[in-house]
Amino acid sequence: MKKSTMIKELLTGNKVIKLAGAHDALSAKIAEKKGFDAIWASGLGISAVETVPDASILSMQEFLNAAISMNQATNIPVIADCDSGFGNIHNVIHMVKKYEYAGIAGVCIEDKVFPKLNSFLSGNQQRLVSAEEFASKIMAAKDTQIDPDFLVIARVESLIAGESMEDALYRATCYAEAGADAILIHSKSKTSDQIEEFSKKWSGQVPLFIVPTTYPNIKTKDIEEMGVKAVVYANQSLRASVKMMDYVLGNIIEQGSSLKVEEEISKVEEIFNLQDVNQMKIDEKKYSHSNALV
Amino acid sequence: MKKSTMIKELLTGNKVIKLAGAHDALSAKIAEKKGFDAIWASGLGISAVETVPDASILSMQEFLNAAISMNQATNIPVIADCDSGFGNIHNVIHMVKKYEYAGIAGVCIEDKVFPKLNSFLSGNQQRLVSAEEFASKIMAAKDTQIDPDFLVIARVESLIAGESMEDALYRATCYAEAGADAILIHSKSKTSDQIEEFSKKWSGQVPLFIVPTTYPNIKTKDIEEMGVKAVVYANQSLRASVKMMDYVLGNIIEQGSSLKVEEEISKVEEIFNLQDVNQMKIDEKKYSHSNALV
Amino acid sequence: MKKSTMIKELLTGNKVIKLAGAHDALSAKIAEKKGFDAIWASGLGISAVETVPDASILSMQEFLNAAISMNQATNIPVIADCDSGFGNIHNVIHMVKKYEYAGIAGVCIEDKVFPKLNSFLSGNQQRLVSAEEFASKIMAAKDTQIDPDFLVIARVESLIAGESMEDALYRATCYAEAGADAILIHSKSKTSDQIEEFSKKWSGQVPLFIVPTTYPNIKTKDIEEMGVKAVVYANQSLRASVKMMDYVLGNIIEQGSSLKVEEEISKVEEIFNLQDVNQMKIDEKKYSHSNALV
Amino acid sequence: MKKSTMIKELLTGNKVIKLAGAHDALSAKIAEKKGFDAIWASGLGISAVETVPDASILSMQEFLNAAISMNQATNIPVIADCDSGFGNIHNVIHMVKKYEYAGIAGVCIEDKVFPKLNSFLSGNQQRLVSAEEFASKIMAAKDTQIDPDFLVIARVESLIAGESMEDALYRATCYAEAGADAILIHSKSKTSDQIEEFSKKWSGQVPLFIVPTTYPNIKTKDIEEMGVKAVVYANQSLRASVKMMDYVLGNIIEQGSSLKVEEEISKVEEIFNLQDVNQMKIDEKKYSHSNALV
Repeated sequence: MKKSTMIKELLTGNKVIKLAGAHDALSAKIAEKKGFDAIWASGLGISAVETVPDASILSMQEFLNAAISMNQATNIPVIADCDSGFGNIHNVIHMVKKYEYAGIAGVCIEDKVFPKLNSFLSGNQQRLVSAEEFASKIMAAKDTQIDPDFLVIARVESLIAGESMEDALYRATCYAEAGADAILIHSKSKTSDQIEEFSKKWSGQVPLFIVPTTYPNIKTKDIEEMGVKAVVYANQSLRASVKMMDYVLGNIIEQGSSLKVEEEISKVEEIFNLQDVNQMKIDEKKYSHSNALV
Repeated sequence: MKKSTMIKELLTGNKVIKLAGAHDALSAKIAEKKGFDAIWASGLGISAVETVPDASILSMQEFLNAAISMNQATNIPVIADCDSGFGNIHNVIHMVKKYEYAGIAGVCIEDKVFPKLNSFLSGNQQRLVSAEEFASKIMAAKDTQIDPDFLVIARVESLIAGESMEDALYRATCYAEAGADAILIHSKSKTSDQIEEFSKKWSGQVPLFIVPTTYPNIKTKDIEEMGVKAVVYANQSLRASVKMMDYVLGNIIEQGSSLKVEEEISKVEEIFNLQDVNQMKIDEKKYSHSNALV
Repeated sequence: MKKSTMIKELLTGNKVIKLAGAHDALSAKIAEKKGFDAIWASGLGISAVETVPDASILSMQEFLNAAISMNQATNIPVIADCDSGFGNIHNVIHMVKKYEYAGIAGVCIEDKVFPKLNSFLSGNQQRLVSAEEFASKIMAAKDTQIDPDFLVIARVESLIAGESMEDALYRATCYAEAGADAILIHSKSKTSDQIEEFSKKWSGQVPLFIVPTTYPNIKTKDIEEMGVKAVVYANQSLRASVKMMDYVLGNIIEQGSSLKVEEEISKVEEIFNLQDVNQMKIDEKKYSHSNALV
Repeated sequence: MKKSTMIKELLTGNKVIKLAGAHDALSAKIAEKKGFDAIWASGLGISAVETVPDASILSMQEFLNAAISMNQATNIPVIADCDSGFGNIHNVIHMVKKYEYAGIAGVCIEDKVFPKLNSFLSGNQQRLVSAEEFASKIMAAKDTQIDPDFLVIARVESLIAGESMEDALYRATCYAEAGADAILIHSKSKTSDQIEEFSKKWSGQVPLFIVPTTYPNIKTKDIEEMGVKAVVYANQSLRASVKMMDYVLGNIIEQGSSLKVEEEISKVEEIFNLQDVNQMKIDEKKYSHSNALV
């Protein structure tokens, strides 16, 4: 089954879909192993791995390559966080061609101006394009895709940019009418109040996605009751990774050896497993009768 | 100061040089922050991030791009783990041109056949090329570099491949005579006995590097007393990262929320710091008088 | 229709298939426009564009990226010239996964050792691996593909390496039995004699491809009569390009202006057409009602 | 000598500097061979090779990689055509870091909005940012560079966008005061009248570059007399290449063989020369005494 079809089926199922943000193939593969339904190729994560701000500094090519790596490393669908679509409608059209060609299950674009700024950063750069302009991008994206199951998610940034709940609902409606397959309603509130209000008032025309980075107290049951369809744990694995690398590298310097941390980190064999070394050994035997490796 | 010159000066200083294996720019930057002297652009690490075996599956281009990312993210030198040189002397010559051009401080190549297999993997593929053939690669590398400080490290895999201590010493001598700036003597022994014996018998013609993955009990003081010049903690940050991502993603699924792990992982602001978001804000002010962002 | 299916259908049709060697997306698109049936993503061409020898200096990643560009620029199938498979069976398995994933219709690998040397270069490096080892690579490739139509072509280099006609026929049989979908029989003879003899003696088990670089006098009719199924004009567009660039750039320097050559080169508008600028204008109108570009 | 220093010296010399537009390493190398002083890594050319419009569809990463290839293939400086700087000042700062790091001698940015449209395309997208905003980009670029010789050229698009000569002169002055090392004054007039007028009225504060694509009748002597310092033959080699590939591939299809074109295209040996195959043979001998290639 195509991965786009997999995600489409999840959207019509009756479970809350859980996506894990990934920043590379390795974090994606661990997320699959732990039971996530799909991967969120995170703009913040992919930028962080390169140590550049999440502010349209990396280009589409770099985000796409990271998404492809994640996709090839896993058997679950990858949804790519595609900023504001990397420019105007021509960039959006180019983007959809490239992502669909690469087997990515879907893309999510947001209604911020290009270059964008990460939604959790304050500053006067959290500016939105007009609803009409963004709806145009959604239309262009939907018209471009060939695979009918390829997903285009519209991310509404009204609540991030300090606009009203009405603006958020208006924009979500425009984008759904323009063809968006789902709405990602973003909030940086410390509680889930905004999300609750939005989902209560939402027409239900298309399913909702949320990203509870600032309101981690929300539980699957709550999400289900609100009628939200998908939850994106967008950056926890990145933050886990940073925390532990910081501790381990610091400890090696302090102790003058890696002895203490040795028991606290994965064994080399676990790394080998994530690299499918066993399959390599099977292949070696399978093709050895004919001396392939002599 | 050029980074190659920085590493050359460290080599003639009287401190043990500490290198941290990195698998991407982010892990390199954290290593710098914690006090490491240099970065080891790890073949295992870079392969693991892509979830492919450390067996010459990734190509030079991918290893080089990862090393460049690390180099641009840090102010300390990057030494690139370059497998067996990616083929024959022509590949080695191409490699040195590319790595030196990219500002990488040095490369390390090993005397295994191409395609190589990770040194900690058992199997009949741990085969070495002749000392003469590998010395030729070292000569070709040294003749190719333009910057006199660019480092070429010869990695001796005799003890990995089950060859004798004499073979290791003979090869190290050949490679030093061929022009290698340092010898990396590799061992997968559970103790530091092999390394101790090697360093005792070593002529001292050029400095020694070690990689204590399997003998983590060795301390800086021991290394210093042995006369070993540099120690590579090659994969601990990768293994730290995997351990913690595995735990955090598992916990989110189990708990149905990220509430429990929220306090155990880095804050989003720490990620922003690693992305130099502050510099971005400074730049914004600096250039705002002329409306650059309106 | 999938491109792999397109090439499979061509193989069972009754016309000689004509492939044009391409070195980038632009040359591929021109080849399609002029009526070629398929594209040959040429190892020599892709290396030449980077000005490095066709000697396994570029890596799989670079050849793959070039093939992807060609594939996205055209509506005809792309067959990728994949040297000796970039290493051993593990590299071949990785290669097939990557090329098939990328939508490339098929790959061609040759029975030379890695690193390989271009077939038209003299020297003692024209060495072959054993027929058994290469058959193993073919088996590994065929076992790896998921799409049943993905093409694996075995290129027999016996006649290039100075081996006998019998060796060529023996190897071709081994490779066909190992699962190769076609045999590319290569020759650097100044006439088509070798090819004629080979095709006469060939069992016909799988179809034959030829590359008449050194025997350009051979015509489609001759090829048809020999029972050869496909002809690869592997490097003519590259050589055309070099010839004309050399002349034009020389003339500009000599004349101190581009006036003389202005009439001898394509107009800027022809370049725009190859870039599909017209489609961009259509898109602009289509999405303008909603102010997308204001 | 650094390539940035080479171009700086050319700028203070008394000859008209001749730059050849290149679209890949091969076209750059031929330009060097024919006597050009420097390479122009052409945005149109690099886009055309990928068959996408010259409209900010390709990203910085792709333009940079092409410029690096050109730079490594030649011994003359490469100036990179960098559109409008790929976004805002943060993108410009990132761009300068990356291009300078990569050894590119300089960049040229233009005062059009992002995403930009090729200057020879009609349409309402030829819009300029304010002089203040663009001057800010120039300041940010100049403040970012570390190498004092790295060149930042400001390209004035007033005459392309239908603005007045006064606007062009005003902008050029602003940009020079902001630190631009040179002004590229662009015109799509069929004659050199606009350029002549501009150069007559120009203060001479910094040197002028021109791109005579639409006025090919202008000669080196004319350029010298106008006081223009550098001339960019930006796309002639690309157009030469397209013309000849179109002819040759068409002829092969028509004739059913490559016999007729064989004498009209470069020999395979000329391709080998451009790939430095001779150096490979020298290297092989040099390192053969120690069996490097057995």
